[in-house]
Amino acid sequence: MATKRTVGALFFDRFELLDIFGPLEMFGVVPNRFELTTVGQRKGAIASAQGPAVVVERTFEDCPQLDVLLVPGGIGTRVEANNATLLQFIKDRYPGLTVLASICTGAGLLARTGLLDGRRATSNKMAFKWVVEQGPNTTWVPEARWVEDGNVFTSGGVAAGIDMALAIIARLESDETAARVANGTEYDWHRDASWDPFAKLNNLV
Amino acid sequence: MATKRTVGALFFDRFELLDIFGPLEMFGVVPNRFELTTVGQRKGAIASAQGPAVVVERTFEDCPQLDVLLVPGGIGTRVEANNATLLQFIKDRYPGLTVLASICTGAGLLARTGLLDGRRATSNKMAFKWVVEQGPNTTWVPEARWVEDGNVFTSGGVAAGIDMALAIIARLESDETAARVANGTEYDWHRDASWDPFAKLNNLV
Repeated sequence: MATKRTVGALFFDRFELLDIFGPLEMFGVVPNRFELTTVGQRKGAIASAQGPAVVVERTFEDCPQLDVLLVPGGIGTRVEANNATLLQFIKDRYPGLTVLASICTGAGLLARTGLLDGRRATSNKMAFKWVVEQGPNTTWVPEARWVEDGNVFTSGGVAAGIDMALAIIARLESDETAARVANGTEYDWHRDASWDPFAKLNNLV
Repeated sequence: MATKRTVGALFFDRFELLDIFGPLEMFGVVPNRFELTTVGQRKGAIASAQGPAVVVERTFEDCPQLDVLLVPGGIGTRVEANNATLLQFIKDRYPGLTVLASICTGAGLLARTGLLDGRRATSNKMAFKWVVEQGPNTTWVPEARWVEDGNVFTSGGVAAGIDMALAIIARLESDETAARVANGTEYDWHRDASWDPFAKLNNLV
């Protein structure tokens, strides 16, 4: 049995609740395969865009080696897109990761690190314009539940991150494991990365 | 414009992450209609079943008047089902609520308060047996995404809580508001409370 993989969730002020707790649930319910950790620029309480706060356990300095790094969106990304310390943390950790993944407008943060240059990526369909502006050298895909480019995954808005997390679990573990997670959490898994009714709703296609 | 409604999320050790953060996201993104608050037997960090901890702001004593009370499931319910203080908090608050709602095995806690006696209810399909044992005087519905009985809502496992939350938003606000929330969060809303492929997967029907 292989050792557990460590999944780090990046937190910052006014992150979007479901962006990060949807994927963390999916990784968290796989028995004995993933260790979850919370990381931020400071330890302790960090409040979400919706109000409720999470307890951040690790700073950028004392965060252990990560296998998967999850970067959520939320209105706080508008500030963090100019936070050089946070962007540097993502860049510094990328070479050691098996998978780097963003949810929603978290793709805007990945874009600002330069790690999306020359890659295909997607994001929230309602805030697509802002995200595109953060990455002029990225091929932005407006109609996609999530996009995989090498080991960089980017998902659509909020709930799309759950489907992306299941796709990552399928890649790192197996399709069977991902299906068990979806069924156990009573989640209607969209396995098709091109399924995206929200692009049309937002006049992106 | 009516005043905001207060939505309280009940936390206890080893709650299930997505059970509560899915619904909180849905209420939280409705502009200016719902105030979210976190409540538990003690303030401060309370760890989820998956690891990450939330910051609880209110105790049972200093919790403000609530309009909606959300009770999650998670493996911690097996302990809380015998926590008289927590059960009494739910009972005490029920008469002042507009809606009482549980997600997943949180229905087991509602059952233990007696508030489900004579009512129809549902729960997680994988842990259905345990929940049924908590409420011998309840009509348990095995095949349901969620069940509404008067002002008491109970949902299926984990992700089912998101559909229930949208149904509550539709009732308290409007169908249009709930649809906007689902579209904005790129969530594939199941509007039909009888949609439930998971009952069959778990041999309950």
